[in-house]
Amino acid sequence: MKSWFPIPPRSHFSLQNLPFGVISSNDNQRHRPAVAVGDHVLDLDAFTTGGGFGKISNLPEQNLSVFSQPTLNSFAELGRPVHRIVRGYLQEVFKEDTPHPVVLKDNVDLQKAALKPASEVTLHLPLAIGDYTDFFAGRNHAHNVGTLFRGPANALQPNYNHLPVAYHGRASSVVVSGTPIRRPWGQALPAPGATEPVFRPCARLDIELEMGMFVSRPNGLGSPIPVDKADEHIFGYVLMNDWSARDIQQWEYVPLGPFNAKNFGTTISPWVVLADALEPFSTRGLENPVQLVCCPWSTARHIIDLARREEDLHSGANREAASQGEETVVTRTSAKNLLWSWPQMIAHHSISGCNLRAGDLLGSGTISGTEPGTQGSLLEQSQGGKTPIQLPGGLERRFLEDGDTVTIRGWAGDIDGELVGFGECSGKIVPPTPM
Amino acid sequence: MKSWFPIPPRSHFSLQNLPFGVISSNDNQRHRPAVAVGDHVLDLDAFTTGGGFGKISNLPEQNLSVFSQPTLNSFAELGRPVHRIVRGYLQEVFKEDTPHPVVLKDNVDLQKAALKPASEVTLHLPLAIGDYTDFFAGRNHAHNVGTLFRGPANALQPNYNHLPVAYHGRASSVVVSGTPIRRPWGQALPAPGATEPVFRPCARLDIELEMGMFVSRPNGLGSPIPVDKADEHIFGYVLMNDWSARDIQQWEYVPLGPFNAKNFGTTISPWVVLADALEPFSTRGLENPVQLVCCPWSTARHIIDLARREEDLHSGANREAASQGEETVVTRTSAKNLLWSWPQMIAHHSISGCNLRAGDLLGSGTISGTEPGTQGSLLEQSQGGKTPIQLPGGLERRFLEDGDTVTIRGWAGDIDGELVGFGECSGKIVPPTPM
Repeated sequence: MKSWFPIPPRSHFSLQNLPFGVISSNDNQRHRPAVAVGDHVLDLDAFTTGGGFGKISNLPEQNLSVFSQPTLNSFAELGRPVHRIVRGYLQEVFKEDTPHPVVLKDNVDLQKAALKPASEVTLHLPLAIGDYTDFFAGRNHAHNVGTLFRGPANALQPNYNHLPVAYHGRASSVVVSGTPIRRPWGQALPAPGATEPVFRPCARLDIELEMGMFVSRPNGLGSPIPVDKADEHIFGYVLMNDWSARDIQQWEYVPLGPFNAKNFGTTISPWVVLADALEPFSTRGLENPVQLVCCPWSTARHIIDLARREEDLHSGANREAASQGEETVVTRTSAKNLLWSWPQMIAHHSISGCNLRAGDLLGSGTISGTEPGTQGSLLEQSQGGKTPIQLPGGLERRFLEDGDTVTIRGWAGDIDGELVGFGECSGKIVPPTPM
Repeated sequence: MKSWFPIPPRSHFSLQNLPFGVISSNDNQRHRPAVAVGDHVLDLDAFTTGGGFGKISNLPEQNLSVFSQPTLNSFAELGRPVHRIVRGYLQEVFKEDTPHPVVLKDNVDLQKAALKPASEVTLHLPLAIGDYTDFFAGRNHAHNVGTLFRGPANALQPNYNHLPVAYHGRASSVVVSGTPIRRPWGQALPAPGATEPVFRPCARLDIELEMGMFVSRPNGLGSPIPVDKADEHIFGYVLMNDWSARDIQQWEYVPLGPFNAKNFGTTISPWVVLADALEPFSTRGLENPVQLVCCPWSTARHIIDLARREEDLHSGANREAASQGEETVVTRTSAKNLLWSWPQMIAHHSISGCNLRAGDLLGSGTISGTEPGTQGSLLEQSQGGKTPIQLPGGLERRFLEDGDTVTIRGWAGDIDGELVGFGECSGKIVPPTPM
């Protein structure tokens, strides 16, 4: 899909993509919706005010007020058919042989008002997150971590293949890419076999490479979402880093699950890739050895395939040797490595009657492959901290150090073709609060 | 503290109390803040508009806009010193020898505009809940349930006495007293020792008698709240019923904690009793056998003492014999039975840097005494379903049946004196969604 507007080759934000986010700029501090197009953003508030949607699109006029909101929640709530209309129309506006040249292609004033270089805007959390739930659908990760925490015999709990295990996460500390992450303090056992905890800054700070999904249409309390209708409740996807304090986690997590080990920060990429944009890359996930005869989420469903993903450990300012901004690729993996699909997760989440709201965030759980260099956490990569990961300049890491920057990049499609990408999900570790 | 306004004896809403809530009425559907006074409510929007705060109170005028908001979040966020001023001023306005008779006592117009019988208003969730966290601070409950789930040897996990164990709960399904609770569907093992789960409506639906606490002043991400400053972050307290699907919980909760077993509904009482109103009833909680030398939450702190609490199992419409609305008292207990204080819970929650926001809800965990008839869950009362609870008319219960109504009432103070009470936290079980 070629555009009259310059979109650099290999851009994550091709015309096939057109992800949605929230921006502000020096000349307009108000948070407002935007779409990423190559190295630029289309300010949807300015585009709407400038008549960009005009009478050309088949979008009811009252819906346009969503583009003056400070978050994408109202847009998300309009539902997938409306997202389809808006994205389809914007693709038409940008494509080389646009049927609507007067809208933007031949309208220098509106270009000037609404198209800005991405480098000139600040990106914010795209939605106000009501509740954040993190699943555990990456079976290879569950197996690897279960082995480290409980031994190989109890690696996967008896329930694991029967239902999409999940926990409620902390919504308030979900932050947008680029936000520094402060190393948390907490209680932990000082060594294996110890019985008395110590209080200290986290000594095993880790990453979790995940995909996140935002909910669009809400369901009512007491009204489960059937798995075959769940697609209609998906707004879109982001990359996610569910930062984890492993030493705190191991001490605190029994019997009610992780709490302080996770609630100090979760980073997401700023652009929401719409469900429709990723739909062409659907594939099958991991095979489930269990026959799911008794459950409404038994329907086998597609998994979104992100053909390649990278997680880069960028060893930063705290090491002279690494201060030049070198990046080391720590892992390359794919979201194919999930046991449960998003519709299955939605169906399970709501089967109790739990109500999902527009803007709720669901995480996939850590995505790990089975080969070396494909795991989504350092805990796995370093085999529980035993085997350090080698970095350039003779440096090594078992877990994160202060000053380290971790960047997750992900995309679907052929790297030499048109990409449907997420951009970056990045965060730098800063030292703990003095105490 | 006597009032010129009639407050019935034994009312939970004495002048010593003055709890805050959110109302609407037939003649004004807009949600707006109110204060409970005996059998009446003072509509704070009407009171403000009618000049009730005038220039008499030492409240900055710009603060008054919080009383036209649809939730108490903005009021909560103003912080405890402002809550103190407002409550103190309203106590002055209502007391027999009020120094401000022209405000309300001698102002029939404002009385007519702002004072309404409680029976004529609808009560709503008092705050928009950002995140909901449930602690596990009731040590007797933790011990009892741990014994049932894992045997007496592993009843309390090694971490239990060292830190206030908690999990992130589901904010979207927190509902106000009176909202029906639909029995959830879910996966569970059909019998002890079974390995293949079944999918069915919950067969062991239970209650959890808790106190809830609302956060007022937020802390920034990365900035823990010290335990000796935590009091300033408390807005007030409610009663809470953390409905629990025990069969679903037992199957799903390892390793990430309860999820569907809890996320179908949590009921709170509608009136928030301010921190200052409960302060006079502070007492010591349970003794901790562990020496907490290493932690910032080690400071021993008071527990709020609710002198008596009742939990009534009202066996309802599904049984002829019980359809007359008889109530059976199932338990009487006290919030003294907590190991951790609210400041300790706040300090622990934020020690990782986790940011609390105005309107966040923290639950105490189930409150159980050690004597028979003082436990806060049916699971404990029926010894894991083995010993039925006897109801009038030869009925019995192990767990809740469709049509049952559970009501929690709680107060501090002498029942024959002026009470600082919560009113009711009530919910009726309705049958599962047909599937």
